[in-house]
Amino acid sequence: MIRVVKIGGNVIDDSEALKRFLKDFAEIENPKILVHGGGKEASRLCVALGIEPRMVGGRRVTDRDTLDVVTMVYAGLINKRIVSLLQSYGCDAVGLSGADGNVIRASMRAKEPVDYGYVGDIDSSLINAGFIESLLKEGLTPVFCAINHDGKGTLLNCNADSVATAVAIASSSFSPVALTFCFEKEGVLADVDDPSSVIAAIDSSGYFALKERGAISGGMIPKVENALDAVAKGVESVTIKSSSKLTSRSGTVITR
Amino acid sequence: MIRVVKIGGNVIDDSEALKRFLKDFAEIENPKILVHGGGKEASRLCVALGIEPRMVGGRRVTDRDTLDVVTMVYAGLINKRIVSLLQSYGCDAVGLSGADGNVIRASMRAKEPVDYGYVGDIDSSLINAGFIESLLKEGLTPVFCAINHDGKGTLLNCNADSVATAVAIASSSFSPVALTFCFEKEGVLADVDDPSSVIAAIDSSGYFALKERGAISGGMIPKVENALDAVAKGVESVTIKSSSKLTSRSGTVITR
Repeated sequence: MIRVVKIGGNVIDDSEALKRFLKDFAEIENPKILVHGGGKEASRLCVALGIEPRMVGGRRVTDRDTLDVVTMVYAGLINKRIVSLLQSYGCDAVGLSGADGNVIRASMRAKEPVDYGYVGDIDSSLINAGFIESLLKEGLTPVFCAINHDGKGTLLNCNADSVATAVAIASSSFSPVALTFCFEKEGVLADVDDPSSVIAAIDSSGYFALKERGAISGGMIPKVENALDAVAKGVESVTIKSSSKLTSRSGTVITR
Repeated sequence: MIRVVKIGGNVIDDSEALKRFLKDFAEIENPKILVHGGGKEASRLCVALGIEPRMVGGRRVTDRDTLDVVTMVYAGLINKRIVSLLQSYGCDAVGLSGADGNVIRASMRAKEPVDYGYVGDIDSSLINAGFIESLLKEGLTPVFCAINHDGKGTLLNCNADSVATAVAIASSSFSPVALTFCFEKEGVLADVDDPSSVIAAIDSSGYFALKERGAISGGMIPKVENALDAVAKGVESVTIKSSSKLTSRSGTVITR
């Protein structure tokens, strides 16, 4: 079973939490893959460089200068920081953008109705699963940032959750895969205000029942639907859990 | 024969020259490796972020903030820009820092007599040649920036010429290697003011004769001595030539 784990910005912004998380991750004995998000460093750098953030409908527009910043921060600073820490914990990591080994091609999002600039979407069927498989066979641990390429020389900023999902689906062509999304909460909560109300397991029929009676709140809906999509496409299970509890049995497990 | 090619900052700073160079590089049919230097982008970013450059004896001190900048620019922006362009020219490139696959470990330079900060030196015998060999066997083209790691979680800024030399020496353990240094001149010149005075071939005995009669000038001496060191350690030949003439027979060829 291959473990694909995604960590988000909150862990990346806290260097002690990041080290604890990476130590836990390094201890996973299965073949494993890490996908990381961005954190606040890119926004800080944009501000320092006087790049005006342009938001449309709550989402950042990635213009040429912003693409350079996210490439520097995600593919450079954060990716290499994570890889060097994993190496120091005995995990033979290899940092990757989608351009490396042509592993993830993305296509620029349509410019209508909103032009988000250098933002890409991923089709899991276009992922170079053979490259991922060969790295895992060599005992290496791929570490993906969410910068991918279009195959024509242009880098594209992608959503890290989508990268993790697409990598997990593509990898399930050669091995069973368990996908884990780490975030700041304990799992999918039946009551957002009660951290102990973690729903231990959800499957597709259970999900519709939960949604119908309003037991799954706004922000969780896309996460759970994304997870259900992944299990429908061949991933064995998707776990949504706290990044501080990577190695313990915890969180919400989503299956078909 | 593996081709190891190093390009410096002058090509990187000129996007059209860089594209021409990378097209030529992509056309090399041999298994190949690219090592790139930095260019002026890191200095520009330091200035924009208000990081005071601190020079000692003409060399930049890499403090913590400067290390973050060079990691962003070399391992992120420049490396991924080069890899995505190579991919668009049909060359299956993989960008690497020394932390990736633990391929190049460096040791922090001694703090006496001058503390250069996060600057590393490389020992070619400590390079993970097996990783380079396995990438080449898969038909991949490694693209190295000069950011390496110490194996204990710290990244170190290294000299790109030294990285190219060490990679070439290490790779000669499994294959014959030809190393090429591309720069702005046509080769080693007998008369610095005459671009047509390229010395076509130098070997170690010839070098000492040239040096004795003053035919090799200041800046070229370390380059040629470095090349002679590489051929003494197993590299077949080292060529010093113009980056605009990568694929033509030109420049100065240094052999044992």
